[in-house]
Amino acid sequence: MSNNKDKIYFSSDINIRERACFETGIKLGALYHILCGIPISLDEKVISSIEKGIESAISCQPYVEEVKINLNRKKIVGNKTDEFDYDEITGKVIQAELILKFKSIEIIAKIEWIEELDYPLMFIEKIIEHKF
Amino acid sequence: MSNNKDKIYFSSDINIRERACFETGIKLGALYHILCGIPISLDEKVISSIEKGIESAISCQPYVEEVKINLNRKKIVGNKTDEFDYDEITGKVIQAELILKFKSIEIIAKIEWIEELDYPLMFIEKIIEHKF
Amino acid sequence: MSNNKDKIYFSSDINIRERACFETGIKLGALYHILCGIPISLDEKVISSIEKGIESAISCQPYVEEVKINLNRKKIVGNKTDEFDYDEITGKVIQAELILKFKSIEIIAKIEWIEELDYPLMFIEKIIEHKF
Amino acid sequence: MSNNKDKIYFSSDINIRERACFETGIKLGALYHILCGIPISLDEKVISSIEKGIESAISCQPYVEEVKINLNRKKIVGNKTDEFDYDEITGKVIQAELILKFKSIEIIAKIEWIEELDYPLMFIEKIIEHKF
Repeated sequence: MSNNKDKIYFSSDINIRERACFETGIKLGALYHILCGIPISLDEKVISSIEKGIESAISCQPYVEEVKINLNRKKIVGNKTDEFDYDEITGKVIQAELILKFKSIEIIAKIEWIEELDYPLMFIEKIIEHKF
Repeated sequence: MSNNKDKIYFSSDINIRERACFETGIKLGALYHILCGIPISLDEKVISSIEKGIESAISCQPYVEEVKINLNRKKIVGNKTDEFDYDEITGKVIQAELILKFKSIEIIAKIEWIEELDYPLMFIEKIIEHKF
Repeated sequence: MSNNKDKIYFSSDINIRERACFETGIKLGALYHILCGIPISLDEKVISSIEKGIESAISCQPYVEEVKINLNRKKIVGNKTDEFDYDEITGKVIQAELILKFKSIEIIAKIEWIEELDYPLMFIEKIIEHKF
Repeated sequence: MSNNKDKIYFSSDINIRERACFETGIKLGALYHILCGIPISLDEKVISSIEKGIESAISCQPYVEEVKINLNRKKIVGNKTDEFDYDEITGKVIQAELILKFKSIEIIAKIEWIEELDYPLMFIEKIIEHKF
């Protein structure tokens, strides 16, 4: 069915490396926008629990082999000693690594806050073609 | 500071029961819209990990005593045997209970999908006034 | 039906002022978390179009009489002259006013970034009881 | 700077077609998860206002040439005659078309609910290489 679907909906002109790159982008875009706005504090239990929850969610999506979210503790504000002393997740704290596999192509991609760009960059670090 | 802030920004006409109800509404509205759209499957580990993650997040917000999310397993679709066989969270699966405390007022509130209304109702089940 | 529902699900102990405060909180919590993470630039057409879109969405919710979103132009970064020169919505730029009416109670509530609290405060500015 | 950044962060092994596919995926993933959960009714003004708002937002992102969102009116429930008679956006109603341009590569991509897959499919319909 999957092959069939690919032929019906996708351009016949797209190869499996390109398709793998497309699927990788979808997951990073989703991961990022799911995380944005979630309340967070500096409590390690809170942080790791949010990381694990959204990792699990993204793992449900097609072709995801592995996903590791690592919110930047150094940039999170708040200890909850005061009632307003907590933070919410923005691009500044989002760090993630995704491994995706589409057919014989494996992709390693990341989200990282790049200081010099003042921007949460999503990029593909490695494309591996598995031979059989 | 908190008292001060209350006087500056809030209507002087609002009592602590009303304020507690307002704060409860904020948390349920937030919880609901954070959950919407998160990918999910029927894998118990995935579900409970998402529940715990968002519970932790909501617990960071002011006046929250406790929050328990219980996504409705009977309405979630997908075992991830097929690549597209997973679901995403909508109001139909969201069940949550929140305990909030503002000064001497404790509120127990819920989100539940009400079949006859075809609607994810948010409601206050109990208001408790603690005497000192 | 509405009256019926109220009796079934809501505490019998909650009065209409408290209920109105609860409903107001729900809408502000929703509005805030829907806005968080949406990409934005300093282009006036972009900003006002996002404002109108989310105002329309929140207006669909029960008891909402009026909602006005006013994203803080002074705090939005980016002119899109460079490809990465745009921003995303966080609590720092969200300003909104909501008028909600539940039975004879009218509530005016706001979200504002409060510099001294370093916090996007949601508060009830006015409660009006309409006499008939 | 852009070229520089590409060399630093991206795999040297990725070509511009692959990069364009990746960037397209990011935008569709973002668009989808921003839309999910937004309240909506069958009021045409509400629908088109939400569509325009999120189109504007996605247009701010790098390399986006054009984006058209077309929420499926036939699947939206609710006229707001009753207070609970409104809907919220899920994958079932999301239809969108995106044109993205990265260097000489132009991509036309779509999100459509595919009945037979019971799935909101994101796919690349066309890849165009512009010659200079």
